[in-house]
Amino acid sequence: MHVAGTAELFVRRTAPVGAKPGAFEVPADAQPTRIRAFLFEAGRCEERHIRDADELVAAANDGRVAWIDAEGLGDGSLLYWLRDALGVHPLAVADIANTGQRPKFEDYGERDLIVAQAATLDDDAGVAIDQVSLIVGPTFVVSVLERPLAIFDPVRERVRSGTALVCRMGADFLAYALLDAVVDGFFPLLEQAGEVLNDLEEDITGRRPVGTMRRLHAVRRTLLALHRVMYRQRDALGTMLRSEGTPFSEPVRVYLRDAHDHAVQVLDIIESYRDMAIGLTDVYLSSVSNRMNEIMQTLTIVSTIFIPLSFIAGVYGMNFEHMPETRWRYGYAGALVLMAAVAVGLLLWFRRRGWLGRPGTGDDAGGDER
Amino acid sequence: MHVAGTAELFVRRTAPVGAKPGAFEVPADAQPTRIRAFLFEAGRCEERHIRDADELVAAANDGRVAWIDAEGLGDGSLLYWLRDALGVHPLAVADIANTGQRPKFEDYGERDLIVAQAATLDDDAGVAIDQVSLIVGPTFVVSVLERPLAIFDPVRERVRSGTALVCRMGADFLAYALLDAVVDGFFPLLEQAGEVLNDLEEDITGRRPVGTMRRLHAVRRTLLALHRVMYRQRDALGTMLRSEGTPFSEPVRVYLRDAHDHAVQVLDIIESYRDMAIGLTDVYLSSVSNRMNEIMQTLTIVSTIFIPLSFIAGVYGMNFEHMPETRWRYGYAGALVLMAAVAVGLLLWFRRRGWLGRPGTGDDAGGDER
Amino acid sequence: MHVAGTAELFVRRTAPVGAKPGAFEVPADAQPTRIRAFLFEAGRCEERHIRDADELVAAANDGRVAWIDAEGLGDGSLLYWLRDALGVHPLAVADIANTGQRPKFEDYGERDLIVAQAATLDDDAGVAIDQVSLIVGPTFVVSVLERPLAIFDPVRERVRSGTALVCRMGADFLAYALLDAVVDGFFPLLEQAGEVLNDLEEDITGRRPVGTMRRLHAVRRTLLALHRVMYRQRDALGTMLRSEGTPFSEPVRVYLRDAHDHAVQVLDIIESYRDMAIGLTDVYLSSVSNRMNEIMQTLTIVSTIFIPLSFIAGVYGMNFEHMPETRWRYGYAGALVLMAAVAVGLLLWFRRRGWLGRPGTGDDAGGDER
Amino acid sequence: MHVAGTAELFVRRTAPVGAKPGAFEVPADAQPTRIRAFLFEAGRCEERHIRDADELVAAANDGRVAWIDAEGLGDGSLLYWLRDALGVHPLAVADIANTGQRPKFEDYGERDLIVAQAATLDDDAGVAIDQVSLIVGPTFVVSVLERPLAIFDPVRERVRSGTALVCRMGADFLAYALLDAVVDGFFPLLEQAGEVLNDLEEDITGRRPVGTMRRLHAVRRTLLALHRVMYRQRDALGTMLRSEGTPFSEPVRVYLRDAHDHAVQVLDIIESYRDMAIGLTDVYLSSVSNRMNEIMQTLTIVSTIFIPLSFIAGVYGMNFEHMPETRWRYGYAGALVLMAAVAVGLLLWFRRRGWLGRPGTGDDAGGDER
Amino acid sequence: MHVAGTAELFVRRTAPVGAKPGAFEVPADAQPTRIRAFLFEAGRCEERHIRDADELVAAANDGRVAWIDAEGLGDGSLLYWLRDALGVHPLAVADIANTGQRPKFEDYGERDLIVAQAATLDDDAGVAIDQVSLIVGPTFVVSVLERPLAIFDPVRERVRSGTALVCRMGADFLAYALLDAVVDGFFPLLEQAGEVLNDLEEDITGRRPVGTMRRLHAVRRTLLALHRVMYRQRDALGTMLRSEGTPFSEPVRVYLRDAHDHAVQVLDIIESYRDMAIGLTDVYLSSVSNRMNEIMQTLTIVSTIFIPLSFIAGVYGMNFEHMPETRWRYGYAGALVLMAAVAVGLLLWFRRRGWLGRPGTGDDAGGDER
Repeated sequence: MHVAGTAELFVRRTAPVGAKPGAFEVPADAQPTRIRAFLFEAGRCEERHIRDADELVAAANDGRVAWIDAEGLGDGSLLYWLRDALGVHPLAVADIANTGQRPKFEDYGERDLIVAQAATLDDDAGVAIDQVSLIVGPTFVVSVLERPLAIFDPVRERVRSGTALVCRMGADFLAYALLDAVVDGFFPLLEQAGEVLNDLEEDITGRRPVGTMRRLHAVRRTLLALHRVMYRQRDALGTMLRSEGTPFSEPVRVYLRDAHDHAVQVLDIIESYRDMAIGLTDVYLSSVSNRMNEIMQTLTIVSTIFIPLSFIAGVYGMNFEHMPETRWRYGYAGALVLMAAVAVGLLLWFRRRGWLGRPGTGDDAGGDER
Repeated sequence: MHVAGTAELFVRRTAPVGAKPGAFEVPADAQPTRIRAFLFEAGRCEERHIRDADELVAAANDGRVAWIDAEGLGDGSLLYWLRDALGVHPLAVADIANTGQRPKFEDYGERDLIVAQAATLDDDAGVAIDQVSLIVGPTFVVSVLERPLAIFDPVRERVRSGTALVCRMGADFLAYALLDAVVDGFFPLLEQAGEVLNDLEEDITGRRPVGTMRRLHAVRRTLLALHRVMYRQRDALGTMLRSEGTPFSEPVRVYLRDAHDHAVQVLDIIESYRDMAIGLTDVYLSSVSNRMNEIMQTLTIVSTIFIPLSFIAGVYGMNFEHMPETRWRYGYAGALVLMAAVAVGLLLWFRRRGWLGRPGTGDDAGGDER
Repeated sequence: MHVAGTAELFVRRTAPVGAKPGAFEVPADAQPTRIRAFLFEAGRCEERHIRDADELVAAANDGRVAWIDAEGLGDGSLLYWLRDALGVHPLAVADIANTGQRPKFEDYGERDLIVAQAATLDDDAGVAIDQVSLIVGPTFVVSVLERPLAIFDPVRERVRSGTALVCRMGADFLAYALLDAVVDGFFPLLEQAGEVLNDLEEDITGRRPVGTMRRLHAVRRTLLALHRVMYRQRDALGTMLRSEGTPFSEPVRVYLRDAHDHAVQVLDIIESYRDMAIGLTDVYLSSVSNRMNEIMQTLTIVSTIFIPLSFIAGVYGMNFEHMPETRWRYGYAGALVLMAAVAVGLLLWFRRRGWLGRPGTGDDAGGDER
Repeated sequence: MHVAGTAELFVRRTAPVGAKPGAFEVPADAQPTRIRAFLFEAGRCEERHIRDADELVAAANDGRVAWIDAEGLGDGSLLYWLRDALGVHPLAVADIANTGQRPKFEDYGERDLIVAQAATLDDDAGVAIDQVSLIVGPTFVVSVLERPLAIFDPVRERVRSGTALVCRMGADFLAYALLDAVVDGFFPLLEQAGEVLNDLEEDITGRRPVGTMRRLHAVRRTLLALHRVMYRQRDALGTMLRSEGTPFSEPVRVYLRDAHDHAVQVLDIIESYRDMAIGLTDVYLSSVSNRMNEIMQTLTIVSTIFIPLSFIAGVYGMNFEHMPETRWRYGYAGALVLMAAVAVGLLLWFRRRGWLGRPGTGDDAGGDER
Repeated sequence: MHVAGTAELFVRRTAPVGAKPGAFEVPADAQPTRIRAFLFEAGRCEERHIRDADELVAAANDGRVAWIDAEGLGDGSLLYWLRDALGVHPLAVADIANTGQRPKFEDYGERDLIVAQAATLDDDAGVAIDQVSLIVGPTFVVSVLERPLAIFDPVRERVRSGTALVCRMGADFLAYALLDAVVDGFFPLLEQAGEVLNDLEEDITGRRPVGTMRRLHAVRRTLLALHRVMYRQRDALGTMLRSEGTPFSEPVRVYLRDAHDHAVQVLDIIESYRDMAIGLTDVYLSSVSNRMNEIMQTLTIVSTIFIPLSFIAGVYGMNFEHMPETRWRYGYAGALVLMAAVAVGLLLWFRRRGWLGRPGTGDDAGGDER
């Protein structure tokens, strides 16, 4: 699971410091805008392309439930249309432009703003987090994405079909359906994170962890980013569920409760995964410690046995003229016996300390420590 | 205590992403469905097998208190019967099918949904967590298990006897009795975890920990999973206890309070065990450190004594023609005396630093460090 | 401070799994029952032994304030008398029998249940935690202990004296007095734990910690157990203080507030001690690290100086026929000078790195690191 | 990112101990005072310099919205003017003088006090935290800064222009605009901290971390300081948003909510960064451990192979007269073969333990561990 | 900053276990009592010495605002006078005697009890925590200190002056003034702790930390003790600020809010310091690890280079008769060249691994790691 430099996951684009309230700047690298309107009622669905403010207002006030589905901020015209033609509050428009807002619900009368954060898999299997902004009016929902994302495709299919539940309900149900799609979009990422964690667990409790700490760090970073986003998302859903000023009618709230439930479930899984990752870190560090112990023990045993033996050899390698032992018939044999006795004595001492049993068991039972 | 790959304990089956609300998929490996109905009143109990939607509805509306006891999702017919014949809300049915829901109470009028999570010992002594779904109506309870579990056997016995308290009370008491069985099912697992922890404690404070970290990790993982489940369970029980829309009458709430109490007790024990496991991890890591210290100390003492001695021997092993000492009568003896003096000096220095006393006490008093 | 196997501090006796609500089992090793009744009014106190259900009911309904003081569950008769003759709720009786309940207050009309947990010093200076169950009626209090404990002795003295405040107040004051005795019973244990911590602190910041980690672990375990118990106790006292359904009259609540205060104070001390223990663990681990560093430094200095010297000696110990140096008149002296130069050079390098200053200061200022 | 000594970030100037309430002392090194008044209405703005108490009161009571913009405490005259001429509560004046107050809102009738903390980049790229005090009256705002700061420059520009929104609103909007400037001033600091963290991440997962721990410590310290300040700021904004006694009218509260939102966003980013920094610390420590392991392994392999070989050489270097092997024709060759056999045996043993594969992979795959 | 044995900071004197409610024991080492009464109104102040219960009551009921300022518990007479002559509740008197109560406000009608904890610098620069008990009546405040403390001296000065604000207000303002003096008494301690932390920071990031861990531990211990005390103090002040039954009139509450604010500020600083201390611990431990790494690296490089060289020397030091190389004319030179080649090869290998660059940079850039 690749992720971009960590801080980038959290740095958010914001208005220039000290700018007047409601100011926004469309980033230079904004994707071109593409706006579609889905106008639907039970059984049929009309799909239009929106090219100017008038078409936008016409679609919103069509009478049928309208989903104005915009992707890309382009040159920012959309934002001016929203503010000046559709009457969206300037602060709401600024929140759409200055992406990186936390998920929230803002009550602006008949043009409520809902901000959500979608998490998707990047082209190179990393995690991308994108702001999803919804303007919910009496009969329309305007959704604005920074760049085209696949997460709304299933909703588009259902809307086009004309037969799905969404076609028989109002704009509030459409808003719910979009939020639900955002929340459900976290599950594939969690599945992938779960697989990475299982792989890591096998590697760590197995013999040869390679690059483990870095991979653990990457997963923890991803989980951290997902947690932050989903935590706020759950709170925003809870607010919409409970508070009075939201556009959601009583029957739709039953569904919204379901989306809230999914958000809680996602958070639960993320938290479990984070605890797992912390546990794995501990096991990994412990295995590193054990490996070190094993290495040191080998060095110590070998050194401690041979250093005294070499010393004995060194003594009899001295060139003194008067070294009686060197002339004895069995001097050499005696020296070898002395060395053997020292070696055996040390081996016995090691065994009593329990150091020798270790490497032996290390091949079978002890293997689970590494 | 064996547990499956950790992430598997938390990965939950969920509806396909972007699916329409209320959608569910019966997993391909679902167990065959087996549905029994217990119709009881004080003194007697009738037991039936349910084979189609009509029999289901007949049992539910029999007038007597009915427990419809279903095991296995099979081909999903049960789910359609519940939705279409018994009038259970589609979202509730989806929650039954998409197992892995958090424990919760959902008020859907006269077909309330209660989701609980049962923890049981697996065939190979691991921990399995299964969703228990209850639909509570005015005179009936439908319980759905993913696969046959033993936890409801005692309740079945009591219902069949016709004399137990449950036979004299309503459907709400039956729902309580099933929830109580789920909560009480955690105690045997905790007992086992307690034994594992006590064993680990003995191993760690004893001499030879083998595979300790891995076993600690496994216990912590299990406790983590149990904690997550029971935490939500306690909250759900608390909600049912306090809120107005639940099917529980005042006299049954006294009993429900007792189940809530047991849930709190289970959580308490789990938390204590987790703290214990963390404490043991610390003691274990400290013992690894101490062991390392001891090894290094041995190596250092032996090396530091013999390296200078070997150097002296090396000096007198040089082949210079003009080495006056080698010709002295007592040169050899002098060299040996010099070596002994160096060795004794170093030993005294070690003793003053307190390094030599250590291994000596290490056999008795110091033993409690390992 | 000795404590039993940790898990045992938390494992609690509970009803068999799946048993019907209100079921209980008297443990096989229950202590024989001994029941005394103290019937008192201002100035005098009558003391009776209770041998059957009738005597129990007579004492409870005597008109005077009655303290029925039971120790030991024996064959369980007491429990049946309470349930069947005195009208205590079956769930309350089950909570008395299945000890290990968390401290709590349960409102059952005129037979309220209060569960507390007493902590006492064991025979072998360990900590024992025992359940104290109180049934509070309009004019009587039944107290049930699993086994005889000394904590109620001061209250018995005061009751017998006939002059204490408790003799002039109602059953609610008596219940308060018993709870107060339970809470105050924690102070001697805390005093002991404080002494152990002070000893540990001296040992750790002193020179020779022995068995430190294990002793720290034992204290932390004890503090953990006390914290769990007292945490719930404080909550239960807070509930009794604030809620309406409790048997405590307004004047007695002033006293109950005092007991609550003591509970908060106990918790405060426990938390401070836990923080202290964690701090000591850190200091201890750091001292282990420092010791390791010191050992490694010694080894490194000695090895790094002598290994090159030995190499030089080894070179001149080679047996080549054509080694010009060996024939030089001052070859031997030159070799010795070379060795001395190498040694001095290395010593200077060590001093520049600051490694040599260390052991020197280690005897005075550095001593506080070990 | 340079920061001053950590404690200095938190030490605050306060009134002398035991001083009477409302006492203050102007610090000896206070900056000279400079007071400007901006009197504005839609379209035009008058700017005056304030030199005495009368001019201050005249500006405040001018009728137009007045921003009295003071920088530097000077000789404290301003404080006396505020207290004695403008009727600001003595405690509020003391809070202005004794900087280091936590961000807060204090309701003193028509002279409310708002304290905020501005974070700015120091001259030497460190973080400076300055108190911003606002006195909000019906038609004026007095802002007091300890020293000239650039954060209010954009607001001054907007006020002077006469066309900005702020010129058409009341004093409450002006107060909001100043608070908003303070909150937005945190973003450039966060951007910088994010860059530092990204650099650190690259360094740590790359090959050669230098000074890493110290730089991590510096970032964490800065984040800690920013978190403390912003945490209180968010709470103060939340209080102003919700409570009744604040000077903010309903339309301005919509904007204040936006500022509160930005504060939450800043906190979010800080918390993410702190988690990141903790994660990086773990990765760094693990890489240090791995490096140590690698070093020890190299030492152990080399030592363990050559120590026995040297011993063999030592044996045949002994000077016994009767060493049969030394006279054998192939003794030398035999000894070399023996040595080679020992070396190969040890290498095979190392390979079986998996120690030899490591350094090889260490150059490519293992490189991500360091 | 010297502190007493840690546990002593938390152990509190309490009533004997099982004692009747309201019981107290005057400690044997109590300081002699000294009681002064300050009777004041605007402009003048009368000061009396109180020697018996009658004088106490006369002062309290004088009509003027009376501050009865008692230091030392002596033989306990004061406590009996308070209880029996002034009508203070027995539980309140017990709380005064059994010092170590947590800071709190207790409503006993017209004789309210306020308990605070004062922190002061000890004679030997350690921290002492003393209970300050206030009995607040309609026109008097009785303050009881265990031993003479300087913290009330500024208040005494202000009272004696007759011109301070305190002389124009009621008993509630006097109580506030005393509480304010207690809270402000924490600032000098925090200043000292800040200096200690700054010193430690310099030592740790500098070259030679000595006794660091112990000093860190001492500061953390002190901060822990101060935090516990101030945490409760803030809560008690918050309670007095908000609740109805307190003796504080509305105008005085504005001042009390200020004291509460100071308490929050103290807590804030303490928490920041604790975080700093934790951060410093991490940096310190990391520097210890780095030092160890550096030592091991030196040892490894030296050993790994010289061990093979010594082996070669050892081979040519063997005494076989048939060693052709020893007879070669350039055998010796060849051996030296071989050794040089091995040494250079190893050096190159170390450089490629990056081990050699380290110690070189360690003198300049790497210095910030230690």
